[in-house]
Amino acid sequence: MNEPLSPDLLRKVHAYWRAANFLSVGQIYLRDNPLLDEPLQLTHVKPRLLGHWGTTPGLNFIYVHLNRIIKQFDLDMIYVAGPGHGGPGLVANTYLEGTYSEFYPDISEDEDGLKKLFTQFSFPGGISSHVAAETPGSINEGGELGYSLMHAYGAAFDNPDLMVACVVGDGEAETAPLATSWHSNKFLNPARDGAVLPILHLNGYKIASPTILARISHEEVEALFHGYGYKPYFVEGDDPDVLHQVMAATLDQIVAEIRQIQSDARTNGFSGRPAWPMIVLRTPKGWTGPKQVDGKKTEGSWRSHQVPLAGLAGDPGHLAVLEDWLRSYRPQELFDETGRLLAELRELAPQGDRRMGANPHANGGLLLRDLQLPDFHDYAVDVPAPGTVIGQATRVAGTFLRDVMKLNMAERNFRVFGPDETESNRLSALFEVTSRAFTGEIVEGDTQLAPDGRVMEVLSEHLCQGWLEGYLLTGRHGFFSCYEAFIHIVDSMFNQHAKWLKVSREVPWRKPIASLTYLLTSHVWQQDHNGFSHQDPGFIDHVANKKADTIRVYLPPDANTLLSVTDHCLRSRDYVNVIVAGKAPALQWLDVAAAAGHCAKGAGVWKWASNDGHGEADVVLACAGDVPTLETLAAADLLRRHVPDLKVRVVNVVDLMALQPPSQHPHGLSDGDFDAMFTTERPVIFAYHGYPTLIHRLTYRRANHQNFHVHGYKEEGTTTTPFDMAVLNEIDRFHLAADAVARVPRLGARAGHFGQIMRDKLAEHFSYIRQHGEDIPEIRNWKWAAAAE
Amino acid sequence: MNEPLSPDLLRKVHAYWRAANFLSVGQIYLRDNPLLDEPLQLTHVKPRLLGHWGTTPGLNFIYVHLNRIIKQFDLDMIYVAGPGHGGPGLVANTYLEGTYSEFYPDISEDEDGLKKLFTQFSFPGGISSHVAAETPGSINEGGELGYSLMHAYGAAFDNPDLMVACVVGDGEAETAPLATSWHSNKFLNPARDGAVLPILHLNGYKIASPTILARISHEEVEALFHGYGYKPYFVEGDDPDVLHQVMAATLDQIVAEIRQIQSDARTNGFSGRPAWPMIVLRTPKGWTGPKQVDGKKTEGSWRSHQVPLAGLAGDPGHLAVLEDWLRSYRPQELFDETGRLLAELRELAPQGDRRMGANPHANGGLLLRDLQLPDFHDYAVDVPAPGTVIGQATRVAGTFLRDVMKLNMAERNFRVFGPDETESNRLSALFEVTSRAFTGEIVEGDTQLAPDGRVMEVLSEHLCQGWLEGYLLTGRHGFFSCYEAFIHIVDSMFNQHAKWLKVSREVPWRKPIASLTYLLTSHVWQQDHNGFSHQDPGFIDHVANKKADTIRVYLPPDANTLLSVTDHCLRSRDYVNVIVAGKAPALQWLDVAAAAGHCAKGAGVWKWASNDGHGEADVVLACAGDVPTLETLAAADLLRRHVPDLKVRVVNVVDLMALQPPSQHPHGLSDGDFDAMFTTERPVIFAYHGYPTLIHRLTYRRANHQNFHVHGYKEEGTTTTPFDMAVLNEIDRFHLAADAVARVPRLGARAGHFGQIMRDKLAEHFSYIRQHGEDIPEIRNWKWAAAAE
Repeated sequence: MNEPLSPDLLRKVHAYWRAANFLSVGQIYLRDNPLLDEPLQLTHVKPRLLGHWGTTPGLNFIYVHLNRIIKQFDLDMIYVAGPGHGGPGLVANTYLEGTYSEFYPDISEDEDGLKKLFTQFSFPGGISSHVAAETPGSINEGGELGYSLMHAYGAAFDNPDLMVACVVGDGEAETAPLATSWHSNKFLNPARDGAVLPILHLNGYKIASPTILARISHEEVEALFHGYGYKPYFVEGDDPDVLHQVMAATLDQIVAEIRQIQSDARTNGFSGRPAWPMIVLRTPKGWTGPKQVDGKKTEGSWRSHQVPLAGLAGDPGHLAVLEDWLRSYRPQELFDETGRLLAELRELAPQGDRRMGANPHANGGLLLRDLQLPDFHDYAVDVPAPGTVIGQATRVAGTFLRDVMKLNMAERNFRVFGPDETESNRLSALFEVTSRAFTGEIVEGDTQLAPDGRVMEVLSEHLCQGWLEGYLLTGRHGFFSCYEAFIHIVDSMFNQHAKWLKVSREVPWRKPIASLTYLLTSHVWQQDHNGFSHQDPGFIDHVANKKADTIRVYLPPDANTLLSVTDHCLRSRDYVNVIVAGKAPALQWLDVAAAAGHCAKGAGVWKWASNDGHGEADVVLACAGDVPTLETLAAADLLRRHVPDLKVRVVNVVDLMALQPPSQHPHGLSDGDFDAMFTTERPVIFAYHGYPTLIHRLTYRRANHQNFHVHGYKEEGTTTTPFDMAVLNEIDRFHLAADAVARVPRLGARAGHFGQIMRDKLAEHFSYIRQHGEDIPEIRNWKWAAAAE
Repeated sequence: MNEPLSPDLLRKVHAYWRAANFLSVGQIYLRDNPLLDEPLQLTHVKPRLLGHWGTTPGLNFIYVHLNRIIKQFDLDMIYVAGPGHGGPGLVANTYLEGTYSEFYPDISEDEDGLKKLFTQFSFPGGISSHVAAETPGSINEGGELGYSLMHAYGAAFDNPDLMVACVVGDGEAETAPLATSWHSNKFLNPARDGAVLPILHLNGYKIASPTILARISHEEVEALFHGYGYKPYFVEGDDPDVLHQVMAATLDQIVAEIRQIQSDARTNGFSGRPAWPMIVLRTPKGWTGPKQVDGKKTEGSWRSHQVPLAGLAGDPGHLAVLEDWLRSYRPQELFDETGRLLAELRELAPQGDRRMGANPHANGGLLLRDLQLPDFHDYAVDVPAPGTVIGQATRVAGTFLRDVMKLNMAERNFRVFGPDETESNRLSALFEVTSRAFTGEIVEGDTQLAPDGRVMEVLSEHLCQGWLEGYLLTGRHGFFSCYEAFIHIVDSMFNQHAKWLKVSREVPWRKPIASLTYLLTSHVWQQDHNGFSHQDPGFIDHVANKKADTIRVYLPPDANTLLSVTDHCLRSRDYVNVIVAGKAPALQWLDVAAAAGHCAKGAGVWKWASNDGHGEADVVLACAGDVPTLETLAAADLLRRHVPDLKVRVVNVVDLMALQPPSQHPHGLSDGDFDAMFTTERPVIFAYHGYPTLIHRLTYRRANHQNFHVHGYKEEGTTTTPFDMAVLNEIDRFHLAADAVARVPRLGARAGHFGQIMRDKLAEHFSYIRQHGEDIPEIRNWKWAAAAE
């Protein structure tokens, strides 16, 4: 092995690493005496010792070596820290390179700043132990593990000059999302995309036990990553002098290889998926920490995971161990008398935006450019009259997305993500202008598949979500279409992204990024091919728990409203948008002008469907979602025919958050508007796409809430027709109409008579469908025009 | 390659496979003329063609070959079908072996039964296209992909004589959960557990595009599975005559190897993780289906995924292709004139319980034995007076679980699962009687780690959940402890398991299994080491959307209530139980007798904490959850001191579903009991562990709902003290007490005065904590006894 570091550089690299380690330990323990100018006393130590030491020295080791190659090769590089509880390390390094003080001037590069840096860590009102949105240079929250490598790939897509170093902890490597993330290399195109350099950090232990990958043979590790399509380099040991040289030599080699791969592909065109280099770094957990505490092995053991010395107040011996540990880094040789890192060490860090804490890719809002959007009106379905024309909402939206894709092709800042469902979700117009991205083998007969495709399909909702997050966080735009039921697979990832957005809004230097927009389709009411397992409309409930200033939920009832909503979502920033829309042929209600107006308001009375004139309605039929809207209008039709003197008002809700009071959500209707729409005392029969309780939850502060009677999904039905699904959950026209009539006391005995007619219709339906396997033609072919006869 | 099948056996195996394929195609297409006694006409075909053909012939191929080795070696084997949309194949095979008709006598083994078998598939009121709880022999729902292999391992644990064949689809193999499932072999002990035989089925395509694993080199596939720790055998081709022999020879070899591995370990003791054999089966998608449809490649293409011929009504040519396809299986050579499979083919299937559709392991309730439970009273914390003693709820529960483990050690039917958090969650008493299971390398310094450990720890919530599901579904017991926030990682898996339980209850032959019990701890209010990313109490909301007869949610406020709840959950059947409890030292409220009584009722007035005597309370302070209970009692204490004439009632809720009306949940309090507890008109200040809206959602039908004022988590706070977390979310004693007083009009100006005192207390708190990093001693050391002074 060659030794690329001169003795002087080796000394400096090691000193820089010691400085980072010193600052890391200082953050965990100290609140005063930050440079150990005086003997360490208990009063210098924080009362509550919280944090994670174990992974930190390894993260610091990597950071200083990446700094070296950034300078040496003028690399554009960001650092994704998978072992996120190494927060102290990332904070220490961004402080040493100067970025931390630029973002947080109060944490200055002197002894006073050091004291604040130490105190704020894991301290009330301070910063958390893991890497978070507050940490300069980060795009990956370190709380919930498993997403580092997918974020790294998301960042690398369409960033040909970027190299994303991604440290994967061996604990994190056990998670499901990380285990499939390695396959992301089948979607990375060296001609078009940047590079990801995975560094698997085998420090051997999780919280309390060894990790899987640290306890399989070297040969199995090598085979595993070879099988995943990488070329693994091993950097293993615990002697820093040796390991600095090995790491430096390995990185030199890897940078050369990556450049060769890229230059080949960019000069000669893509010619097959390369074996990208990666590093397996095996170093002791808690490296350079106390060898033993209370006679028990600590360095190189799970006992280093959090705070190796926790009993300081009760054990003066522990205080001495801590002081020895801190002084082992020889801080007086690292910082000058003002507390600033020595100039000869400062020179090791890159300059300006090349510093990983300052790289604009990690604050993607800085790089974000608006999407070029065509006029969505141009894609509208012609709807001369409500409920007479058949259209397919997502198919129409697909034509709009196709042209979004086309208009931004040169800018290379828009991709569409989905788990093998783009075609199934009827967004196939996209394939008129691009393909699915794939760098695996392509054979005869494959269609819409190319190394430079911009539709990202893989049968993993986790990968779709993680890639998209990485893509958005680095300043680009995207769109995620998914089967509604299975979006719960990424509930937790949504949580973490929403939390990231919430915190980012509070961090002044973080610039707004494009929203994460979900199109949920193949929804609960349309499960022809599938059954009960494919039915779950609860993602909306999950989303509604997050901060109101971060989340938006739309239920466009037809194609033109979906167009308007999609256009709106693609322009938005810092939100998570959830759109639920159908993919099946269905009646259309609004022309594009009416659709745009309706979506802008969020909810409104559909006068053309109401017969309450200027007076007070007897009953309000409200609806949100495409199938509920259809059934509500069919119910209104039934009521007109059978109970013509009943004054019915039809209200449609597109923007679900309009139901909440404005004090709870910025989109909330004022109480005046809400009461004018839903009345203050008349029954409201509300047909809702999802679980009924959500409507109660959103409206419980409204005056008329007691009179809301919500029909929605109640976990009934399996493979059957959409109409039969509605019947089984009592959200169909017959149940809705019967419920409406039953709530109007003045109808007296007529209500009972009408109820019987509805029950007869239901019996007829059951009998017909069991025999014929499809709906009664009268139901299948129903159109709103009939009401106008 | 040797040829283990004699010409006669080869002919029969092939015929059996043809029969299964014929029945599969029949299910997708036909509603009449099931044996093609007459020429096929459109009226014989279903009006809606739904289903999935592509994966089915491969599943059928595997089934017939497994039948052969079951008979040959008298194997105890179940079949886990990962490509779940191959429902027609599993139904066809269980029908051929006779189990389907035993479970569903209406689907008889004759032409009439065949007609019903065909018609019910993907038909309204019939069965879904994927494998589900209704399918005999199944423990794995085929809707949401990714869980087959973890279910298989869960089934194999502690079942030394069982061999679990697990077919993994190459689509499913892309999912995150499946990608990490391969590592389950590091937890399987050949001396104690059964075997898993993974069969990776590379049929090349997902819905619309190729799969990753089908498009990497043979060498990479081999390396990948070698790296995962397997010994892969390749069975590849499309000529059935050749492949039958190769498959048979491979299975013979594998059974011998598995038996050798097991016999070595059982004779000589565990001596290192073996390389378990597995199969990579590469056959065409839609094998034996139409080669081409409309000139486009169909067999061996993604076009075979669902229904290869969909346009029958409009294209007589298609009907002819379908008839040719069906007749290519030569049904007249397979079934006798009554429509029954020929006797010489029936003989190929195993007999009785050896049939994979009848194996009792796949209907685990048949094998379930009650756990031996110690008397939980024996583990109680001594609580001579409420709020004076400190205890640690989960640590106490750990001692109970330890003895559950001990008492059932011989029976080998209880394991505890958790993502590397058993110790962190304070269940460490378990390690007094067992260890963590691990069959990777164990080195000096490792503790509580052994190949025969019964605590299943891996840093993957998915694996914990999936293993546990497999373990429960095969008739054993388990317990899953997890950080509260990260349980969302398995939201979707919970969904599918709850759906499975719901359907199982409706399937008469499925016997009840042990409930899946979660202990969620390290919860939102106790995030010392961690920050905002570790805070999410929303799993309860998610769970509450499922069928009331399937889910239970408990929030025990202290150790003795946790003991009582844990005991109850371990006795229950067919539920998902969610327990949320704290792990930190905290005040204890109830002695064990009071705790048991309180838990049995689900909710109750704590008279010792109330001062409303026999009269009407001015205000009700309600609470659910440990920290909310503490803060509520501290608020009651404040009110007694400062507003002694205010009549305060304290209500604690353990069983959250007690809040719902009995019409909505079987645990719901009657309206009479509810109103007696919460009054019908007095303000209720409700301190709730999670998102406040859930309480509104559960109580919106109650008389006094309008007066419920709920304090809960509102996504505020990061790393800080538990008390400061409470303050930031306004669920602390000061906010609660101030809110209570403000809601009682008769207090007039005194309310304002008291409110100012509370604000002063909060200001004092903020100032102190920012300076000292810990809470004011008066808050830290508060005890309820003070109220009695």
